[in-house]
Amino acid sequence: MEKTFDALLARMQELRDLGGLIGLATWDQETYLPPKAAESRAFQLSTLQGIHHERLVDPRLGELLDWAAGNKGLTDDQRAMARVLTEERNRAVKVPKALVQALAEAQSRGLVAWREARKQNRFAVFKPALERLLILRREQADAYGHDGERYDGLLEGYEPGMRVKRLTPVLGALRDNLIPLVAALQAAPRKVGDFFEGRRFDTETQWRFTLRLLGDMGFDLEAGRQDKSIHPFSSGQHPTDVRLTTDLEEGSLTALFSTLHEGGHGLYEQGFSAAHHRTPLANAPSMGLHESQSRMWENLVGRGRPFWTHYFPALREAFPQALAGVELDTFHSAINRVTPSFIRVEADEVTYNLHIVLRYELELLLIRDALPLDELPAAWNERMRRFLGVTPPDDTQGVLQDIHWAWGEFGYFPTYALGNLYAASLYRAAQRAVPQLEEGFARGELKPLRDWLRTHVHSEGHRQPAEELVRKVTGQGLTDVDFLAYLKSKFGALYGLSL
Amino acid sequence: MEKTFDALLARMQELRDLGGLIGLATWDQETYLPPKAAESRAFQLSTLQGIHHERLVDPRLGELLDWAAGNKGLTDDQRAMARVLTEERNRAVKVPKALVQALAEAQSRGLVAWREARKQNRFAVFKPALERLLILRREQADAYGHDGERYDGLLEGYEPGMRVKRLTPVLGALRDNLIPLVAALQAAPRKVGDFFEGRRFDTETQWRFTLRLLGDMGFDLEAGRQDKSIHPFSSGQHPTDVRLTTDLEEGSLTALFSTLHEGGHGLYEQGFSAAHHRTPLANAPSMGLHESQSRMWENLVGRGRPFWTHYFPALREAFPQALAGVELDTFHSAINRVTPSFIRVEADEVTYNLHIVLRYELELLLIRDALPLDELPAAWNERMRRFLGVTPPDDTQGVLQDIHWAWGEFGYFPTYALGNLYAASLYRAAQRAVPQLEEGFARGELKPLRDWLRTHVHSEGHRQPAEELVRKVTGQGLTDVDFLAYLKSKFGALYGLSL
Repeated sequence: MEKTFDALLARMQELRDLGGLIGLATWDQETYLPPKAAESRAFQLSTLQGIHHERLVDPRLGELLDWAAGNKGLTDDQRAMARVLTEERNRAVKVPKALVQALAEAQSRGLVAWREARKQNRFAVFKPALERLLILRREQADAYGHDGERYDGLLEGYEPGMRVKRLTPVLGALRDNLIPLVAALQAAPRKVGDFFEGRRFDTETQWRFTLRLLGDMGFDLEAGRQDKSIHPFSSGQHPTDVRLTTDLEEGSLTALFSTLHEGGHGLYEQGFSAAHHRTPLANAPSMGLHESQSRMWENLVGRGRPFWTHYFPALREAFPQALAGVELDTFHSAINRVTPSFIRVEADEVTYNLHIVLRYELELLLIRDALPLDELPAAWNERMRRFLGVTPPDDTQGVLQDIHWAWGEFGYFPTYALGNLYAASLYRAAQRAVPQLEEGFARGELKPLRDWLRTHVHSEGHRQPAEELVRKVTGQGLTDVDFLAYLKSKFGALYGLSL
Repeated sequence: MEKTFDALLARMQELRDLGGLIGLATWDQETYLPPKAAESRAFQLSTLQGIHHERLVDPRLGELLDWAAGNKGLTDDQRAMARVLTEERNRAVKVPKALVQALAEAQSRGLVAWREARKQNRFAVFKPALERLLILRREQADAYGHDGERYDGLLEGYEPGMRVKRLTPVLGALRDNLIPLVAALQAAPRKVGDFFEGRRFDTETQWRFTLRLLGDMGFDLEAGRQDKSIHPFSSGQHPTDVRLTTDLEEGSLTALFSTLHEGGHGLYEQGFSAAHHRTPLANAPSMGLHESQSRMWENLVGRGRPFWTHYFPALREAFPQALAGVELDTFHSAINRVTPSFIRVEADEVTYNLHIVLRYELELLLIRDALPLDELPAAWNERMRRFLGVTPPDDTQGVLQDIHWAWGEFGYFPTYALGNLYAASLYRAAQRAVPQLEEGFARGELKPLRDWLRTHVHSEGHRQPAEELVRKVTGQGLTDVDFLAYLKSKFGALYGLSL
């Protein structure tokens, strides 16, 4: 076999093309697939994923990667490409085929059992399937390898380089800071009511507004598109083909925030360097860093006063009846209302991370086999009381609310919190670097932020681990300092408190 | 390697899944792909086609097929599956990789040169690329093998089992019958003017009408969908996922006929037997037979008086202004106006096949290397005069009008004529078999025809060659008798002639 970088590159490109096609088939499944085609699409996706796996674990790819690892003549980028693919390949090689198949089956059963458990509103119905998934995931973590902390083996798949040892103190401190903050905001004399109750927003008008926002953010609608789906998501087949979805509801404006969120992911995907296209570098280094981009646009930009200084007049014009007589201040408070609630996906910026810490603590115990499954619902509810002061009335509004565990995803939740922390630190760096950033927002100029992110974050791709990149850009690694300062400043002002 | 039918079936299923994904990526390319993603999609498609080819020519698949060919214990369907795949595989194996690559490159260059030639309106600009394509296609035909008639080697790829020896006399007789028929209709005292000139049909209303037609035909919109594209096409990813497109123009009602045409293809794809899904039998035995279904619904049903007896009142209600005061007879004549014209895709039912015979005669000469390319435009125009009495004013309206040769497709055109002939014969058999078929159309009952086709044609899949299936269903093989009888009866009545 010829050992050249071109030969290796051809294999990288083939893998990326297959990955893009998996993305397309999945996107189509959630948008345009005819209902009766669910089974045939499952077969097609399974075939495609099987071929992707087969190409990835191909011993000849391993030989090429070994050759590249020992080759001093490669450029920095070439070495980074080989390193990232080697890491991905090593993980794929370590898991025996029987375990891959057992997991796929357990995932299907997990979803079915979870749906049934939600219908019956009884965790016990889901328990056996969850037990099986945990056994297999622990086995998988052992196959990946770890230094005694199994969870690290799983976390690595979502947040390469992150470890429990580093994550637990950060999330623990975050929790200990957020609990009193939530309590203080709840006790504040200034109250924010439920603004959206009874208001109606025409969905076609919302749709046009979301497209305007995407354009203003600098999302290239000639290198991507937006469609509708039940759950919003983003999917990058290639940096020239980035697809977002949003979910339109007449009773709220969540579509706007979904679009800003998915648009943040989309800008990341569109922003990879052309030199990295069809290579392992055209990727975020971690899920957490990807999430930092969506959370930044959704919350730090899109729930900010400067943003709405510009957009609120247009919004009121778009919805003259629903927003008749509403002032900017009222609207800005309404979209930043802090309320401890049962459901993570409906949570505000302040309480959200407590939902995440709760899940992190529990799944860490589960993977360590240190929490009997029978006690899981009680452990969930006990933390809900301790963190947020509320008790879920039933399992569906408690331990059964998320699809992640039903699908056997353990290690994914903390990336949401990392996204929030990284978002605040990167945003702070952008504020320092870009003159009059928020003054620009107030004039509808969003692109300077996109341009700064493109230069400092997106175009880097997966050249270095997430935390290393963040340290390079902000001068510090993972920290909750910027995030907490942001929350205190913003919500202190909104609730009339000095925090 | 384990030699069982299940092992063979798994490979068949993988190939069909890959084929379905190629279909999806191509459908997406023509409907929703962002404009800047054209290059990345081309890479993805090329990767996928490469893997499909690699799996098809895999020697282990060859061994399994050899094993199946000698195995008496297989069912009829299993033997048919193995036979169809063996034929496909044998063709793929015979073409050297270098020729495949040379052809792919020549096709790309062909398209570019053809577009430029159309822009400049000069055949000479396209000539060198066409020359190259012809050389490579002749080489490919020789690789496939033939009995002295190279064209047969290419024809086999579109119309398995058909040969020049059989086709030439049928198309020659058709031509000799059609030329005087066209002349007679042109000379008829009753004239039909250009009905659509100046009328406007709201495209959203047209869209709704096309969906109603699809539903009435029995096209399952839960196992398929319709979208918009520049050129209408149909694409079957799987019998549960059949996608049609149509093209809406305000100045005409062509979308209705496009939908009936593509819907005819779509019913075929949805009608394959569930026992054949994901196997080589879930396929039409030839392009001509597939086309018979689209032409039947577009023309024999959709331009017929019974059909419009039911639908014209609804159409007039949908377009009250454009169709104010228009009677059924006027409309029925208008959509059946016979006019010799330069452009094939705009041709009526009577003149259409003369466009096809012209192309067949020319490409047969070209593949035989019996017509110097310099003489091609003149040979085209001479036949246009002889067949239709009109002379194209320039190359763009003559020899440069179709994309097929630009893409190196020689052998495809005759399948359009075969589709028309098979359609008439199958329709006549349906009329004999289904009581009051057209009386039902006049009440909007289209499904009895679909059901008959499903039972006798669609569900057969690729169990036997096209002509064998037609003979089984109609009692006779390929013939122009039913088609000519249909034309004479229909257009005689419309033009007040006894033909």
